[in-house]
Amino acid sequence: MKKKIAVILCGSGFKDGSEIHESVFTLNALSEHGADFQCFAQDAPQADVVDCLSGQAMSGTRNQRVESARIARGNVKKLSDLDPAQFDALILPGGFGAAKNLCDYAFKGISATVKPEVAHALDGFSKLKKPIGAICIAPMVLALHFKGKGLHLTLGSADADLEAQLKNLGHHHKACKVTEICVDEASRVVSTPAYMHENPAIHEVNQGITKLVGSVLSMI
Amino acid sequence: MKKKIAVILCGSGFKDGSEIHESVFTLNALSEHGADFQCFAQDAPQADVVDCLSGQAMSGTRNQRVESARIARGNVKKLSDLDPAQFDALILPGGFGAAKNLCDYAFKGISATVKPEVAHALDGFSKLKKPIGAICIAPMVLALHFKGKGLHLTLGSADADLEAQLKNLGHHHKACKVTEICVDEASRVVSTPAYMHENPAIHEVNQGITKLVGSVLSMI
Repeated sequence: MKKKIAVILCGSGFKDGSEIHESVFTLNALSEHGADFQCFAQDAPQADVVDCLSGQAMSGTRNQRVESARIARGNVKKLSDLDPAQFDALILPGGFGAAKNLCDYAFKGISATVKPEVAHALDGFSKLKKPIGAICIAPMVLALHFKGKGLHLTLGSADADLEAQLKNLGHHHKACKVTEICVDEASRVVSTPAYMHENPAIHEVNQGITKLVGSVLSMI
Repeated sequence: MKKKIAVILCGSGFKDGSEIHESVFTLNALSEHGADFQCFAQDAPQADVVDCLSGQAMSGTRNQRVESARIARGNVKKLSDLDPAQFDALILPGGFGAAKNLCDYAFKGISATVKPEVAHALDGFSKLKKPIGAICIAPMVLALHFKGKGLHLTLGSADADLEAQLKNLGHHHKACKVTEICVDEASRVVSTPAYMHENPAIHEVNQGITKLVGSVLSMI
């Protein structure tokens, strides 16, 4: 039986959606390991649309599922249709979208809330003791949702502000290089910093994510 | 001295821009080989905008350079600023954008013309005998521009129509699996089919592109 992994996307682009490299490397590593994957996204507008060249806000709205289909080549199911019983693990790539569309951390910091469909997915996998992988800023989505549960997570290098935020949410931070992963065996959560580091080499981002995928799959 | 490779993007998404996986795997393989890269795109609207979930046309316009910045994390120069003398090789990822934005093959078949800035880049690298890599449908851009020059190219499996088109343009087709490359030593052109094949495993697309990048770099 092939392992079957659900991947949550939330748009296509580092400034307003899923980080493209992180998402592609996740799917590539899953495929390389012989696992099946299915992408999911909320059928809802992105929080904003950002010109990724200038960094300025753009007019118009973009739908998370429609834009995620750019990464997933058309095969993105509605997140509301995700049944954790049908999958062996869940992976959340990062990008600003994780902080804007999966929760509102980008706007509210640690008083943010996680979107209901995302929260429902996290609860489902967690209750079934199925592993969850989170990349880049996506561990913050777990930190918000599993407040007080004492997760061990990485958000990159030692950063006083981020470490304080994780501590305030009742978790523990582990500094990791871009090629490293933080494995929380007890909570079955794996994280890797990817583009939380400034300007890492793209192939090192791939190395970190490939390790994360291998670790998540080894827990199944 | 690090090798320096120019990569031409034309949007972000398989139906109306650069194929995202192909673009990311190109940048990743270049980085893995220790080469520097710089992405370029025309500062011009895409030929169209397509909903990559439904496959239907969408309203609105999107700028090729702005959308390419989603793949290149903001670092995309204007194609009009590309000076082939400053680079060692050129690589063109595929996606429908290559057939819609780099030329109008998607609309006019082999009577298509290649966009002036793209033609200028191809001429520049070719005259300096610098290698050119082309992925998926992008070899058709070379076939159109270098009409009658007898290039050896792959567009995937044996396909009577595509083979006839290449023959009519004065070139030779080589059937390749997704993990294979077609190397034309004389013309210093390397191609790989990637998503010209239907539903290949994403990691096999990566394998073909990684081979292409290695072959292009070996010619420098």
